[in-house]
Amino acid sequence: MPPVLAIHGGAGTMRRTAMTPVVEASFRAGLRAALWAGHAVLASGGSALDAVTHAVMALEDDPQFNAGRGAVYTSAGWHEMDAAVMDGRNRAAGAVAGITGPRNPVLAARAVMEHSGCVLMTGEGALAFLRGQDLAWEDPEYFRTDRRWQALQRELERRRSNAADTRDDAEKHGTVGAVACDAAGNLAAATSTGGMTAKRPGRVGDSPVFGAGTWADNATCAVSCTGHGEFFIRWAASHEIAARMRHRGETLAAAAETVVAELETVGGDGGLVAVDAAGNVALPFNATGMYRGRIGADGVAWTGIYREDLRTG
Amino acid sequence: MPPVLAIHGGAGTMRRTAMTPVVEASFRAGLRAALWAGHAVLASGGSALDAVTHAVMALEDDPQFNAGRGAVYTSAGWHEMDAAVMDGRNRAAGAVAGITGPRNPVLAARAVMEHSGCVLMTGEGALAFLRGQDLAWEDPEYFRTDRRWQALQRELERRRSNAADTRDDAEKHGTVGAVACDAAGNLAAATSTGGMTAKRPGRVGDSPVFGAGTWADNATCAVSCTGHGEFFIRWAASHEIAARMRHRGETLAAAAETVVAELETVGGDGGLVAVDAAGNVALPFNATGMYRGRIGADGVAWTGIYREDLRTG
Repeated sequence: MPPVLAIHGGAGTMRRTAMTPVVEASFRAGLRAALWAGHAVLASGGSALDAVTHAVMALEDDPQFNAGRGAVYTSAGWHEMDAAVMDGRNRAAGAVAGITGPRNPVLAARAVMEHSGCVLMTGEGALAFLRGQDLAWEDPEYFRTDRRWQALQRELERRRSNAADTRDDAEKHGTVGAVACDAAGNLAAATSTGGMTAKRPGRVGDSPVFGAGTWADNATCAVSCTGHGEFFIRWAASHEIAARMRHRGETLAAAAETVVAELETVGGDGGLVAVDAAGNVALPFNATGMYRGRIGADGVAWTGIYREDLRTG
Repeated sequence: MPPVLAIHGGAGTMRRTAMTPVVEASFRAGLRAALWAGHAVLASGGSALDAVTHAVMALEDDPQFNAGRGAVYTSAGWHEMDAAVMDGRNRAAGAVAGITGPRNPVLAARAVMEHSGCVLMTGEGALAFLRGQDLAWEDPEYFRTDRRWQALQRELERRRSNAADTRDDAEKHGTVGAVACDAAGNLAAATSTGGMTAKRPGRVGDSPVFGAGTWADNATCAVSCTGHGEFFIRWAASHEIAARMRHRGETLAAAAETVVAELETVGGDGGLVAVDAAGNVALPFNATGMYRGRIGADGVAWTGIYREDLRTG
């Protein structure tokens, strides 16, 4: 039942052996903080759009996740972030790609949606527009984390030595996102990412591509995806879920699971979070894990990482 | 019946009073040249992918159309071009956004598809990758046309004086694109554009957004769109046509016309060209005109501009 909010913090191969109890507890705490940030908006009568924005801001501010502070590096050693937001009430949409500067890329995406007359803006042109907006800015040092910098160095060394890629996906990529249904039954989705570690400068993934990594339409669902973005673009993953609901009458769960399963057959590892206007939530993924969580009207935060039941605490 | 190819060169408000017989004949000649370029590939047993690439190259090389040479200017007085190509055989896809340099942006999109490991690349990062590819490059002067430069000056002056926007859409924007079904029943789509006259630097339209302005999947259709791109993104126009065919069993014509009509109700002016694996072609638009054409196995080029039957010669 609405209001409800669901989030993800990346999906892929995750070895339990690489995770200590302390690290796992820290990830779950980060997920809960984001759930509560979004829930606080919904509980006070706020919109789904504001709720997903605040939830994603919390994940961007948390250096554990690959978005905002803690974003991964391009092969050139800098950050290029992508973010998107979409409002299910009227399909208003805004996205940025390939930017560094605004502390919260999801707020940059909202500024594009609300003030630019555009839907998607990239690079220097996007930054020029955003400088005229009321946004907090940060130096590159703010976004830097030693963990991501070391991950870049290891990946560049691996490429030099032509060694096999044995990294966990958590080291390779990741995305954060949120979907919500507010008390009025309005839907919204937001997604934010640093992309893939050591990606080519200029590469844009599925997050800011509406219909791929991000979608929201009150008539069907709100969806935010994470995983190997190129496949999510080529399979129009999030819009395909909406299309299955509208044209085939499938439930949210059936449509979301079908799309994630189809992506697995073609090598598109990842997952997504989705919600419909009745407050149903789906959190499917085809990899060994997905950082994820949900929170309903009672304000209890449920989180999961591996293939396991969600839990509190 | 395959092989068949269809193209567009932009859609929108077009006043017949603003068109002289000489200018109209010149546009039709440009459309025919592009149709023959694509048909030559198909007639010699080439792939739909190569056919749409060659048809779009011809339109990019023709300064009458808003893509490649003759592209419109951003508000800052330079060119930022977007292009995309998609192969219906395996949904391979490549796109560039916000670039100036490669003579044919559609070839840049193909290089991304075939050699980058990415699907979408933008700006300086894209150009850095493309410099390592086998592409012809041009100086900004090559892309310059007096017509587009004057259109920019008039639009900037209009904004300064807060006058109403009474331009024909042909002065504001435009896109070129092609779809094809080859003798083997394989589909492909390509789209290329300079965007909108006096657009914000950094603005990206629907052309390089797969599922919006460009889509190809042998199971359904290949689609290339033109019009007010923000609406085509928010309605996932091209993927919605494919979804209606797959999930509702609609014909290509019914699906394409439904989507173009729905876009009209929300203010999304424009049109598209589409083809399915049986060789059916649809060329719907919701504005007063769309530069368009089709060519079948017999090699006869049919063209149209206004609401009129296509004609030869």
